[in-house]
Amino acid sequence: MQQRLHVIYHVHSEARTIEARARAIAVEQSVEMPIAAIEDGLVRSQIVGEVEAIREQTVGLFEVRIGLAQETVGQDPGQLLNMLFGNSSLQPDVVLHDVDLPPELIKFFAGPRQGIDGLRRRVGAYSRALTCSALKPQGLSPQGLAELASRFALGGLDYIKDDHGLADQVYSPFKSRLEAVVEALARNRLQHGRSVRYVPSLSGDLDSMRDQVAIATAVGLDTVMVAPMIAGLSNFHRLVRENPDLAFLAHPGMAGAARIAPALLLGKLFRILGADAVVFPNYGGRFGYTLDTCRLLARRAREEQGGLQPALPVPAGGMTTARVPEMLDFY
Amino acid sequence: MQQRLHVIYHVHSEARTIEARARAIAVEQSVEMPIAAIEDGLVRSQIVGEVEAIREQTVGLFEVRIGLAQETVGQDPGQLLNMLFGNSSLQPDVVLHDVDLPPELIKFFAGPRQGIDGLRRRVGAYSRALTCSALKPQGLSPQGLAELASRFALGGLDYIKDDHGLADQVYSPFKSRLEAVVEALARNRLQHGRSVRYVPSLSGDLDSMRDQVAIATAVGLDTVMVAPMIAGLSNFHRLVRENPDLAFLAHPGMAGAARIAPALLLGKLFRILGADAVVFPNYGGRFGYTLDTCRLLARRAREEQGGLQPALPVPAGGMTTARVPEMLDFY
Repeated sequence: MQQRLHVIYHVHSEARTIEARARAIAVEQSVEMPIAAIEDGLVRSQIVGEVEAIREQTVGLFEVRIGLAQETVGQDPGQLLNMLFGNSSLQPDVVLHDVDLPPELIKFFAGPRQGIDGLRRRVGAYSRALTCSALKPQGLSPQGLAELASRFALGGLDYIKDDHGLADQVYSPFKSRLEAVVEALARNRLQHGRSVRYVPSLSGDLDSMRDQVAIATAVGLDTVMVAPMIAGLSNFHRLVRENPDLAFLAHPGMAGAARIAPALLLGKLFRILGADAVVFPNYGGRFGYTLDTCRLLARRAREEQGGLQPALPVPAGGMTTARVPEMLDFY
Repeated sequence: MQQRLHVIYHVHSEARTIEARARAIAVEQSVEMPIAAIEDGLVRSQIVGEVEAIREQTVGLFEVRIGLAQETVGQDPGQLLNMLFGNSSLQPDVVLHDVDLPPELIKFFAGPRQGIDGLRRRVGAYSRALTCSALKPQGLSPQGLAELASRFALGGLDYIKDDHGLADQVYSPFKSRLEAVVEALARNRLQHGRSVRYVPSLSGDLDSMRDQVAIATAVGLDTVMVAPMIAGLSNFHRLVRENPDLAFLAHPGMAGAARIAPALLLGKLFRILGADAVVFPNYGGRFGYTLDTCRLLARRAREEQGGLQPALPVPAGGMTTARVPEMLDFY
């Protein structure tokens, strides 16, 4: 029996078009091409997403359940996100609402290694709400943050975490900050006998985060914070697998990325970070980008920008050969 | 002279409240705490975000320009995204519209290493639009995809890229796929003398992507695709820095993540990937999450889910001590 992910989307649609729209999402999140053009029988029967149910919630809003083949995801968290919403995240009428994962995939990801019990045990608090506050503002020195941490600890907090803005800045380098805070808390613990945990925020690429984990564990810390949507889900999960004894606090930073202007994110930022070409959904195709959005995005990718080389704009997404002349003219 | 990032947000607001709202965004994206509580003079003058301009665009929609200190970003792309929109991405009235980066930051990121020229040179096409199509559907074997690639090449395409859904699946492992496609294209090139480039899609964590880069370069490829919002911007940039001779194609997958239900992304997925605690914006605070959203998120984090340990829900975001009893009751 083939394993499937059951994905729930909320779709704004008219009643007369919802069935076609649901099938389009099932295709978008699986084979991403017209079914009629698929020659392989196994792909048609096993890999193509399947609309399992459509239910009207209110007038114009439907709950659509789609089954996706587990094989398309493999065991990679980034690829999971990709298959759940990679392309549909760009379509304005769809909300990714929920998913049921096959048991063996959940078993592989394996969830919290410490969980609520481990977090309670760390601070010796078993039957009440835990408390946590953030070291801030951004800009204080390690000593300034350490003094603040001491005051937090004296006030009785269980967990003291970095503000998610604290990274490895010149005014408060990661290593100096951790050493200063840990020393201040150790002093405090000696005086008052309280358990308190400091939770540094990890940032940067996977190697940087690994270096930071090494620094944290070297000074005796056992709990860290990551923003998975910034780190990338695959890297977050890699850290979790590599450090089963650490507790991970997930920060929601960037969990609302849809509202970044495409011309900025794709046309400017990806280029500045080194993209030689940027793929984006063409206007008038399957996605909601307007003509003006595409024009601006293509301009951003190529216009003068600090002496950088231009990046190649690559309009994509259900285009037809009939539109090629128009697109050549437009771009 | 201190370097600043100049960030443009589009904000839905009434005219009488826009000044306060703009200041709130400037604070949210810098020190994230009440200015009055900041004792350090340098932090107040240098680090706190500054509202530089407010301009009404249409009734109820304002363009707000905010200056952020470059020191808060350092040189990390993930931290850049964090400071630009990390928290504000969770607020429904704000769109991150544009940013001007300080020249030295742009110089460090350094943009495309190959750019349009390098991409044209690869395929020997200097004065026309380049062509590119994607190998699909998902589910075909390496041989099936290689045959398709041959047909694409015979049809005259410049670039043949993996569908962004192709990763390292059992039905088409990355290494086997690359070897099969490269062999098919090499055969074709011998017969027809055309330049054509195959662009494999990288996936997984940074180490996996590095392994894939090694496989790609070993079979003679010089162009790859990454979805930076899935890989994490820092990891994407790391790959770019490590491989200055490769051309990188950026895929927009997940560039529209705001429309993922918070209960799913934060409450369920982060947990399944190993978060021991999930921070989320509490209802009635500075963010737009409703009471029902928070209830569901907290339930997802703790309910039975494939035998996993529960994750600790951590409501956060501008809460007051006066609300503690209510919150204890609610959660």
